[in-house]
Formats: sequence, C-alpha cells, structure tokens
Amino acid sequence: MRILYHLPLDPGCRKIRLLLAEKGLGVELKSEQVWERRDAFLRLNPAGEVPVLVEADGTILPDAQVIAEYLEETCNETPLLGATALDRAETRRLVNWFDRKFAREVSDLLIEEKVMKRLLGRGNPDSAAIRAANHNIHHHLDYVGWLAERRNWLAGEHLGLADLTAAAHLSCLDYLDHVPWDQHPSAREWYARIKSRPSMRPILADYLASNPPPKHYADLDF
Amino acid sequence: MRILYHLPLDPGCRKIRLLLAEKGLGVELKSEQVWERRDAFLRLNPAGEVPVLVEADGTILPDAQVIAEYLEETCNETPLLGATALDRAETRRLVNWFDRKFAREVSDLLIEEKVMKRLLGRGNPDSAAIRAANHNIHHHLDYVGWLAERRNWLAGEHLGLADLTAAAHLSCLDYLDHVPWDQHPSAREWYARIKSRPSMRPILADYLASNPPPKHYADLDF
Repeated sequence: MRILYHLPLDPGCRKIRLLLAEKGLGVELKSEQVWERRDAFLRLNPAGEVPVLVEADGTILPDAQVIAEYLEETCNETPLLGATALDRAETRRLVNWFDRKFAREVSDLLIEEKVMKRLLGRGNPDSAAIRAANHNIHHHLDYVGWLAERRNWLAGEHLGLADLTAAAHLSCLDYLDHVPWDQHPSAREWYARIKSRPSMRPILADYLASNPPPKHYADLDF
Repeated sequence: MRILYHLPLDPGCRKIRLLLAEKGLGVELKSEQVWERRDAFLRLNPAGEVPVLVEADGTILPDAQVIAEYLEETCNETPLLGATALDRAETRRLVNWFDRKFAREVSDLLIEEKVMKRLLGRGNPDSAAIRAANHNIHHHLDYVGWLAERRNWLAGEHLGLADLTAAAHLSCLDYLDHVPWDQHPSAREWYARIKSRPSMRPILADYLASNPPPKHYADLDF
C-alpha cells in the first residue's frame, strides 16, 4: 500500500489526497509534524516538507507537483491534466495560479496566522496579514466564478487538476471559515459540485481539536 | 518567430532562455516592465508575471513551468526532463527545490533588495534580508556540490532542466556578485561546465546600466 506523509490543513497534501481518490488509488495517510524535522523523514525529503508519497515499490516522491505529474504519467486511466499539450498548459497555468499566487496572497497568510502560530506558539496572529488575505480572496473568487461561468470546470470541459488544486486551497480556508461564499455565487456553485464528489468526503471529515471547523464546512448545502 | 516577454535578472526567464537555446529554438526577446501592468500584457497573462512565451502560431504560454513542460512535450528532440517517469520526478523535484526553496531562502531576497528596490524606488535595502540570503546560500551550494560529485549533472547522467534552473538562479546572483564560489569548489566546477555552454552566452552578455556586473561574471575561468 502506498503511504502519504501529510498535514491535514496543507493545500498541497489535500490536492494529492483528492488526486489519488479521483484516480481510484488507495493510500495510507501518516501525519508528519514537519517542524520536528525527524531524521527518517528528512531522508525521504531533504526539503523537509509534505506531501511525500511512498509508492508500494518503495519509490519516494516528494512535492505535490512532482507527485501529480508522476501519477499522471504512470496511472493515466483518469487523466487529470488534459488531453492535448495546450489543455495541459492551461491546467498547469491554473495549478500554479493557486499554488503560487493564491498561496502567496491568501492561503499561506491565513494558514500561518490562524493555524501555525497557535500550533507552534509563534505569538499572536498578525491582523494586517489576515486583513490582506481577506481582501485579496475576493479577486480570486471572482476569477474562479468567471472561469466556472465560461467552462464546465476551471480549465475546460472536464474536472481536472486545476479544480482539485483550487478546491484543496479553498477547503483549507473554508475549514477556517474565511471564504465569503455569499458574495461569490458562481464560485460557490463550482465548489458545491466539487464538494459533492466522493473524493472530498475524507477531507470534509478532517478535524483538528486545536481548530474545530465551522458547521457549514462539511455541509453539502452550505 | 516566437517571442519571449522577459526580464534579464529574473531566474524563471533565464531558465526559459537556456531551455530554448539548448533545444535549438529561436526566439525574439522583449523586455517587459511588469510593474507597469500594461493592459496588452495582462491580456497575455492575467497573473501579470514574466516569462510569457508567444509561439509563432499565436499560442500563449505564461509561467516558466508551464512553458518548460509544453516545450518538452512538443519539441522533444533534446529531452531535458529525463527518459523515465522516475528520472522526470527527480528533475522536477530539483526544479522545485530551486524555484521555490532556493528562491524563498536566497534569490528572491537578493533580487528584491539589490535590484528591485533600487529600480522601483522602494527604499533602502534591508540588511537583515541580505544577511539571511548570504547565510542560506552556503547550504544550497553544499547541496549542488554534493549532487555534482555523485552524478554527472544535478539530476542524473545528462544535462537537464534541473541544471538549467539552478544555473538560472545562480547566474542572477553571480551577476550581483553574491555567490561565494571560493568556498564551494564542487559547485563551482559544475557551474564552470554550464557556463561554457553556448546556451549561456547571451545570458553572460546581459548588462543593466543600473547594476553593472562584476568582472568575473562573464569570465569562463572565474
């Protein structure tokens, strides 16, 4: 059985959980407290970051993007990047939009201030950083809504890695009750479709005692 | 002819210039002052970032990673990612090491403090950020040296995208005279091999009047 070293509120880890589930690939999850910098974990990934996937044959794959491309190449019954080189370019463009731009402007800020600081005793949340993230998220939800109004899914006709990446980030923020769905009906309609997929069920069941989720988090009619 | 919108001291842009040259693909360079947020440029890439490649057939490809994967899929005479899925995973792992970890810990800091602040009148360089980058670079140069001692090139037997990515970042910092080669002979030996390639020539000829390079920058015997 493959093993995924992960953290529950890490968008990259959630993306790989969604991708494995959409491809119908089983996995055993192991929570990895990366800040403890365990020697055995650093031997798997010298960058010291999750996710790391260890395949049943012992193949070690660190980094969400490395894992996604590898599984797309080796388990291609359910393609998630797209059918043509141009489709794949559009998927990768949006994947990077969320993993870099959205992360920098929204999700990294909120996860650091609302989760990591409390967990690691790094002091009080920085209200300016939270304010900036709460401001920036509107621009991104507008973009999600704009794409979802014009295409069936974010990168085109079929559900793909762009949707899983956006859902991975937004589900972390929804867990923290920081997504203003009311003001973004098109983005909400897209997220409702993602939320009802079987691949989302384990993610909607995530629970951290230090940060319990709001009631609507697991509700399909939110 | 394809067009690359770029900035000379941007590691992602340098990577694509190197990749195009290694694949023998011609390109016209256009410098894009991204901070001016030109409407016509934002229509090419709503993220407002370089590099953006426009192919001769009008195909628009924003983002260094998107461009690299697209060119690997469509112009595969000179493969730069590797022959097997596992080789490609190792290349992508190292590409992300430099584009994310090295960028965050070293190159983003130095380029912001030494180039962008001066260019955009954003105030004085932050000496703490420069100190941190100068400290962190040793760890990364040790890693480059460690890899180069065990393999012919960083990700394996053949020159590939991991080498071009690392060279793109390090050549920007070498331009700023911030690479302590003397203390890292194995990393220097690897960089000397990259530096002597024809693909590096245009990059070694880059010149910004606001930040002239040190003498050794273009010297193959540095």
